[in-house]
Amino acid sequence: MKAEYVNAFVESTINAMQTMTMISPQRKDVKIKKEGESATFDISGLIGIAGEAVGSVILSFPEDTAVKVVSNFIGEEIPEVNRDVLDAIGELTNIVAGGAKKIFSEQGYHFKISIPNVVHGKDHKINRPKDVPTIVVTFSSDAGPFAVEVSLKMGPKPA
Amino acid sequence: MKAEYVNAFVESTINAMQTMTMISPQRKDVKIKKEGESATFDISGLIGIAGEAVGSVILSFPEDTAVKVVSNFIGEEIPEVNRDVLDAIGELTNIVAGGAKKIFSEQGYHFKISIPNVVHGKDHKINRPKDVPTIVVTFSSDAGPFAVEVSLKMGPKPA
Repeated sequence: MKAEYVNAFVESTINAMQTMTMISPQRKDVKIKKEGESATFDISGLIGIAGEAVGSVILSFPEDTAVKVVSNFIGEEIPEVNRDVLDAIGELTNIVAGGAKKIFSEQGYHFKISIPNVVHGKDHKINRPKDVPTIVVTFSSDAGPFAVEVSLKMGPKPA
Repeated sequence: MKAEYVNAFVESTINAMQTMTMISPQRKDVKIKKEGESATFDISGLIGIAGEAVGSVILSFPEDTAVKVVSNFIGEEIPEVNRDVLDAIGELTNIVAGGAKKIFSEQGYHFKISIPNVVHGKDHKINRPKDVPTIVVTFSSDAGPFAVEVSLKMGPKPA
């Protein structure tokens, strides 16, 4: 997977966070995920990608970060993780995937995105096919750390 | 969501199990998933759907069932859940989603499917958007119980 493909998701994540939550995240670390590693954090918004690129994107938050991010997102103090928080994390994942989709389409790659699924559970693992590498980008922010995981298999570049 | 849409996934699941694992599952129960309910079991293969229908399909197995199903699938006794089991559950989910996609396409609906993500974790919850209902179909089989969860938002029927 080329760096530019991951960058589309990084750019879209920073845009979405700034626009929707008024939080400005800093990109910290980029690495290839090892086999069998847990999801980065406890709440993972997941969207499937299908078309000229096939894969998935995950936004993964510790519970504390998720509560702060969603409080900013909906403009109301939320005390703890509840259904609204999970819904809002799904919506945020949708905005990030939609933004990346737009960037890819400007580069000539077209794909569609599925509805968001939000996984909630301590130490949950999300396993992906062996032939599709997963790149994990970690961020720091005023609301706490979070991560974006991108698994993508590109088709041939369309003419 | 119409019954016929769920039936496409039920039919595809029974086909895939019989063909790939020589297990003949019986459909037990069909219900609409309530808010905040856990995933049906501990290992959930998940595939995103995007196109004229948007949503996701999940195959959810208790660990015991997963080990038996995958032992049959790869023709080798597997002692416990490992990376191969998670990969095989992903592959099986892919076959079920691919089969349903074919049935839908015969009905005039075209969509694409993403790569499988396999969630592994005790009591993990998978939350979906409020406006997309989730239908849970439970099955019994010689390998034990398992479930198929379908969330689908259909576009207008193409002409």
